[in-house]
Amino acid sequence: MSIRYLTARLAQQIDEELMSTAGAFSLDQLMELAGLACAQAVATVYPLSKNNSGTSNEKVLVCCGPGNQGGDGLVAARHLSMFGYKPTVFMPKAGSKEIYQRLQKQTENLSIPSLTTVSQLQDGLKDTDLILDAIFGFSFSGPVRPPFDEVLTLISKSKLPVVSVDIPSGWDVEQGPVQREVANTDGKKVEEVLMPDVLISLTAPKAGVRGYKGRHFLGGRFVPWSMQEKYELNLPQYQGFDQIVELPRAERNDNEQSQKL
Amino acid sequence: MSIRYLTARLAQQIDEELMSTAGAFSLDQLMELAGLACAQAVATVYPLSKNNSGTSNEKVLVCCGPGNQGGDGLVAARHLSMFGYKPTVFMPKAGSKEIYQRLQKQTENLSIPSLTTVSQLQDGLKDTDLILDAIFGFSFSGPVRPPFDEVLTLISKSKLPVVSVDIPSGWDVEQGPVQREVANTDGKKVEEVLMPDVLISLTAPKAGVRGYKGRHFLGGRFVPWSMQEKYELNLPQYQGFDQIVELPRAERNDNEQSQKL
Repeated sequence: MSIRYLTARLAQQIDEELMSTAGAFSLDQLMELAGLACAQAVATVYPLSKNNSGTSNEKVLVCCGPGNQGGDGLVAARHLSMFGYKPTVFMPKAGSKEIYQRLQKQTENLSIPSLTTVSQLQDGLKDTDLILDAIFGFSFSGPVRPPFDEVLTLISKSKLPVVSVDIPSGWDVEQGPVQREVANTDGKKVEEVLMPDVLISLTAPKAGVRGYKGRHFLGGRFVPWSMQEKYELNLPQYQGFDQIVELPRAERNDNEQSQKL
Repeated sequence: MSIRYLTARLAQQIDEELMSTAGAFSLDQLMELAGLACAQAVATVYPLSKNNSGTSNEKVLVCCGPGNQGGDGLVAARHLSMFGYKPTVFMPKAGSKEIYQRLQKQTENLSIPSLTTVSQLQDGLKDTDLILDAIFGFSFSGPVRPPFDEVLTLISKSKLPVVSVDIPSGWDVEQGPVQREVANTDGKKVEEVLMPDVLISLTAPKAGVRGYKGRHFLGGRFVPWSMQEKYELNLPQYQGFDQIVELPRAERNDNEQSQKL
């Protein structure tokens, strides 16, 4: 049985059920485990390694949106710091929920620098090894509004390695990559889409990433067996006590393969 | 610099600081990471392995006290279930805080059996491979009150492998093993002390476990660098993105070695 790719609506439903009285999870719990999984995916693909010019992969620019995805990013930034990385948080719009203030305070307590303006982001992009994209999650629906339109363009243009959380920012949750028309330096209009090198899906992958070609991990090892069955998620088996599992290529290209047949 | 063994008072102070407005952690967050570390310590020392008679190490009886330590146990039981173990929770006194009800509900959602009476515990001990002792933590001060006196005796007499969380239950947090006088089957008084095979200290080890001889892990990879320095914790380096680290024998026997010199 192949893994199930969720519609935006089903992803929302599972999320709500987990945090309902019946599911009994708190946002704090789920975000902690999700953010930890994101940090572990980064550390798996881009391990720290010392060399003559310093430590490679050390600097991670964690770009956070204003919703729960941004919260996952803040948690990931904290764990990356604990793992020995040097994360920087870029969060142009502070989340409104009280939890974001606590999560931000936790990153401050680790002396993780925080950027808020696009101009700071431009400087930040010149001084990072990779990017963790925690801008938009499964509740995103376009179009991309300012300042995030400019943010996505800057990230794409940076040519830096990008790890996206759950859904690459700007993609449609169900339809996948969406070309956005942006002006290049000459003022000409060009089509652009953020194409991450690594993706970490949370709970279960979303329909929009079915054709995704990069390395693809799954995190969020907390979905009760009964919910996995009820929604026929067919999640792959995590190994040992791992919090992430890499999805095999066959799973990733389900759609393509069936189109070829 | 050797790792610091905490007094009960300092352990309390660090815990409060982490959850203060300044530390900004929620109990949900810390308990989630602590419980995950406990489950990982169990899975490290007692990995699941299939053999002719079934799967060894599969059944884990998680004994939970009424305080935060019991909460760590409930989280550990949940993660153990996600790892493929078959945990059972024994919790004779339900914790009063709202969080315990949520954590218990989460274990119910995974169909983890729950025992509450000493008689059920006696049956449970006959049908388990190992025990996770999450009864008393760093805020314990003796004597051991009913029903936990009987519970500790039953656990000791079971001769099953025991993994203790933070401080072996019944031990003095600072002084270590405390012999308790109990009646054996003949009615004779004998001295007894719970001696776990594995210990997982959380945040930092407590003074009472300094002479502990079994395998000793540290978990709780969330203490900010500034707090580690302020309290001169000298924590060992966790590897990669591990959530636990095993303490070397040299660290464990600090006290003994200095006595021998």
